Amino acid sequence: MALKGKALVAQGGGPTAVINQSMVGVALEARKYDCVTHVYGALHGVEGIVNEDFIDLSQETVENLERVAATPSSGLLSTRVKPDAEFCGKLFEAMKAHDIRFFFYCGGNDSSDTVRIVNEYAKKANYDFCAVHVPKTIDNDLVLNDHTPGFGSAARFVASAFAGVNQDNRALAGVYIGIVMGRHAGFLTGAAALAKTYADDGPHLIYLPEVEFDIEKFLADVKSVYDKYDRCVIAVSEGISDKDGEPMITKLVDEVEKDAHGNVQLSGTGALGDLLVKEVKEKLGIGRVRSDTFGYLQRSFLGCVSETDQTEAREVGERAVQYAVLGGQSGSVVIKRVGDYAVDYELTELENIAAKTKHMNPEFINAEGNHVTKAFIDYCKPLIGAELPGAYRLRAPKVAKIMNK
Amino acid sequence: MALKGKALVAQGGGPTAVINQSMVGVALEARKYDCVTHVYGALHGVEGIVNEDFIDLSQETVENLERVAATPSSGLLSTRVKPDAEFCGKLFEAMKAHDIRFFFYCGGNDSSDTVRIVNEYAKKANYDFCAVHVPKTIDNDLVLNDHTPGFGSAARFVASAFAGVNQDNRALAGVYIGIVMGRHAGFLTGAAALAKTYADDGPHLIYLPEVEFDIEKFLADVKSVYDKYDRCVIAVSEGISDKDGEPMITKLVDEVEKDAHGNVQLSGTGALGDLLVKEVKEKLGIGRVRSDTFGYLQRSFLGCVSETDQTEAREVGERAVQYAVLGGQSGSVVIKRVGDYAVDYELTELENIAAKTKHMNPEFINAEGNHVTKAFIDYCKPLIGAELPGAYRLRAPKVAKIMNK
Repeated sequence: MALKGKALVAQGGGPTAVINQSMVGVALEARKYDCVTHVYGALHGVEGIVNEDFIDLSQETVENLERVAATPSSGLLSTRVKPDAEFCGKLFEAMKAHDIRFFFYCGGNDSSDTVRIVNEYAKKANYDFCAVHVPKTIDNDLVLNDHTPGFGSAARFVASAFAGVNQDNRALAGVYIGIVMGRHAGFLTGAAALAKTYADDGPHLIYLPEVEFDIEKFLADVKSVYDKYDRCVIAVSEGISDKDGEPMITKLVDEVEKDAHGNVQLSGTGALGDLLVKEVKEKLGIGRVRSDTFGYLQRSFLGCVSETDQTEAREVGERAVQYAVLGGQSGSVVIKRVGDYAVDYELTELENIAAKTKHMNPEFINAEGNHVTKAFIDYCKPLIGAELPGAYRLRAPKVAKIMNK
Repeated sequence: MALKGKALVAQGGGPTAVINQSMVGVALEARKYDCVTHVYGALHGVEGIVNEDFIDLSQETVENLERVAATPSSGLLSTRVKPDAEFCGKLFEAMKAHDIRFFFYCGGNDSSDTVRIVNEYAKKANYDFCAVHVPKTIDNDLVLNDHTPGFGSAARFVASAFAGVNQDNRALAGVYIGIVMGRHAGFLTGAAALAKTYADDGPHLIYLPEVEFDIEKFLADVKSVYDKYDRCVIAVSEGISDKDGEPMITKLVDEVEKDAHGNVQLSGTGALGDLLVKEVKEKLGIGRVRSDTFGYLQRSFLGCVSETDQTEAREVGERAVQYAVLGGQSGSVVIKRVGDYAVDYELTELENIAAKTKHMNPEFINAEGNHVTKAFIDYCKPLIGAELPGAYRLRAPKVAKIMNK
């Protein structure tokens, strides 16, 4: 390989618990090669690249890199900017000016599209360059990937939260609605099902973006569970949409905020939960109805991490460098499940990942459209790492009544 | 001691991560004594007592008791019923009918009042009886206690959450508001301060129920932090109140729900957070403003527990039985801090605890009334158990710009 120059790593989109593992995986691996003269990190993703806000990761201790790897969220800071073709041209010019020959961008499908366009600029300019997209998203919605780094840890958070609130809801009965992240894909909301130990444990109902949300059906479902158990725990994806594909939150909230990607703001507000609570209270006449919106906690909570996710996030960063430096290849690293449980990595063309969204496999969703199947639980369980601590019940026998016989 | 008969344990009020440690502490200790013929558990607290919904904890394996001890929330289930004197009379009658001679009630200050009244009925009836209140509350607001079981684990959750969202807010800058439980006492909200590693880490501002909340002052504080750091992380107690002591949430939300204690519903809704977000957006013109309401997650999240809290919760249950069975005493078990860090337990008269609320010591609150002091951090740190995993930053040097010089 004649390719010699600097490597650049950046992080884009929503932070995860393990995105720093990928960044450090890139940095430590790239530092091994003579043909990589320096390893730079761009601050705030693509924004930092056009502004040349680079730091020199060659001048970091292994100790501190490892500490940052174990820290949630994006150590290089992130951005919500979605570059258009012109912006990508600027990205390329900045990288060229700094003799950057290897580019690694950790992010979701929008980030992979950015990598693709930058790579095309390099080709057109006959600039020797390898660019690899390193997958990341708690939504788990990248096509071709069995799953994505970040998902397992967020899924562990969601399962742990529902295991706890299920106990809380048993102790003080009522209806509990937990709103979980996931704009178009229900994987993270589905992970709530991993919270169950006993057959009548919650979540009793799970609503996913993949299934058309009908408020009347929802109320009937809740009534049915509540009639049976005197309580009901529900996991709802923030992205649930009606039959026309319109997110419920846009129908419920007066003013909606949109990001640079044209996406409606779903997180950072309790509005959807509060409005579902209102419906249940008013239409079903149930007194104690509560909602929590898990919000940012699910992607950054300190100390809730899946070791599997951690390891794989490190590996995709490491492999990205190997594909680029040793193989001279550009592309997107893909996680394949090759055993129960084992994974392998492949490199795919960037256009195979870019701007596409993976949805839940229909066999992961029950026939009623209000829960997940055993197939989903089998799929998800190895991803959350060590088995959750159990949530157990007393089973002592009842005492015969004396006064109220 | 002539006292011989059954022991009864029950749990009241909001669940905690360690209230089952106390219940199991009572059960295992009481099962040791010959004078305790059976150990009963009442389901759903005082409701279960009047309905004689008892289970026989003498017929439980140690293994299962230990599993339940490690499970968050109230294994005996709970209640929000606040008994009046007449109801307490019924409690006494039910206990007398079952020859219950030892009564242990895990709960907050309302629960201690219930224990006090039942004990008075027993005295009037010349019924030999010992009743001990076992302290519990994530709010940490029981007088005479250095702190209360349940607080340390909830504080650990709050600190872990803020350590994470602080990283998230660094990566994608803006204003973040986290709403924390605590109706009258700000201890739990103050625990957010334990999240800080670096001097400019959030939470940058902390608002407590002990300090009169003024929306104009709040906005000025946020502006000042945002001007300095381009971001701001804020911890807000759900119980913040205005100069007349009226909770902000009642001023903001049209319909408020009240519980049996006459308390306004503060949790299970994102309304307070959403309305503070609206104020910051509109008045300060900041684009990215987000809020999460930690809700029920902070008191029941599976796997987030302070070992110190766990141990002490077990011990207060154990000591309660020893005071009653060996000492023939009634009262409330109190936690005293006797070293840095070590505790001891005392028994105090029930009327010393009942229906009183401990607030944050003024020396725990900064002069500005918008953060906690080092004294509070020193007080709180040993209570959350093992040191939190660190949250570290890259410190690689900046690279000189070429194009944007």
